Amino acid sequence: MAQSTLIPEPPGYAYGHPEVPRSPVSIDELRQIESTVGWTDQDTKILQRHAEIFRNNAESMVDAWRALIAAQPHLLQWFAGPDGKRDEQYAAKVKKRFVQWVVDACERPHDQAWLDYQEEIGLRHTPAEKNRTDHAHTPDLVPLRYLIAFTTAVAIATRPFFVRAGVADPELRKLEDAWAKTLQLHVTLWARPYTKERLW
Amino acid sequence: MAQSTLIPEPPGYAYGHPEVPRSPVSIDELRQIESTVGWTDQDTKILQRHAEIFRNNAESMVDAWRALIAAQPHLLQWFAGPDGKRDEQYAAKVKKRFVQWVVDACERPHDQAWLDYQEEIGLRHTPAEKNRTDHAHTPDLVPLRYLIAFTTAVAIATRPFFVRAGVADPELRKLEDAWAKTLQLHVTLWARPYTKERLW
Repeated sequence: MAQSTLIPEPPGYAYGHPEVPRSPVSIDELRQIESTVGWTDQDTKILQRHAEIFRNNAESMVDAWRALIAAQPHLLQWFAGPDGKRDEQYAAKVKKRFVQWVVDACERPHDQAWLDYQEEIGLRHTPAEKNRTDHAHTPDLVPLRYLIAFTTAVAIATRPFFVRAGVADPELRKLEDAWAKTLQLHVTLWARPYTKERLW
Repeated sequence: MAQSTLIPEPPGYAYGHPEVPRSPVSIDELRQIESTVGWTDQDTKILQRHAEIFRNNAESMVDAWRALIAAQPHLLQWFAGPDGKRDEQYAAKVKKRFVQWVVDACERPHDQAWLDYQEEIGLRHTPAEKNRTDHAHTPDLVPLRYLIAFTTAVAIATRPFFVRAGVADPELRKLEDAWAKTLQLHVTLWARPYTKERLW
């Protein structure tokens, strides 16, 4: 018998699960946001073409981005437990989902399940849901300013992985652009629950 | 006598004017956001090194970005007057400040006056202040999702100006990175008045 290719889902990962509420954002609105960011079918294809880079390096990528967080107390504090130290258990649980997110961001189609889960991820950074999934006691928020600002740092910090995998210009720039658009698309959707009624 | 190098300020442009309220964001918080986006002195220097590209092309850049907006009804609608057509007078006034913004974004130091004006720009995209400066009757909002998503489109659409000005790798990538960080830093600050109390 062929070995199962199913990878166990990280705890708290709820992509496509029936308990994830429907996003208040419509698919039509999603298409408008995609268009705004400059997303095209070419971006989907180029990410698919390099999916192995993301699959093979997802954990190392998260480690690289987290090293940036660890070096900045104003970013690290949102992982702290009541004793003021990083809650290692919480950080480890979140990390598994973050690694899975890298693969999802590259491979999953932008459909209703994808859209619903982006709302869920956004909520999990706000007082509405932060800590709930992991029964943790860290601060109840990652402020929106850090989510938005960190997006560009993540985009730039991913480049060395593309280069080390042998991607060179002009393909490299296309891949970087697709990845930058993907990141911005995600953070745009995650910003929704932070935003005042009607202003998002 | 030497000719004055003073350029007349666009109507409604209030950078450094005493009537611009102090930003609720502190300089310390600004430094944390800069750090989060990956901003360094090198970015300041590289923008200064290529300041002429921005000065010489500011209007063409705005035209290029606006062509992207004009092609997308969900973006263009925020310029529409009560008759549903683009309010040309409003668009022309905003454009002059947008062109000035390009030069400012490249050249101005990130000090208190800069910080205060970013809050003002953010407010001018929300019901608190949109239309007020220009006595216009367009919709009272540019939704935050379009501001965030469009940032990446602007970053990518600026590249041809750098290339046409003769900037080549590796300098080109440094300039693109500095510009992408600048844009994200701005939009992070503009997002503040859209955001729920305590969540920004």
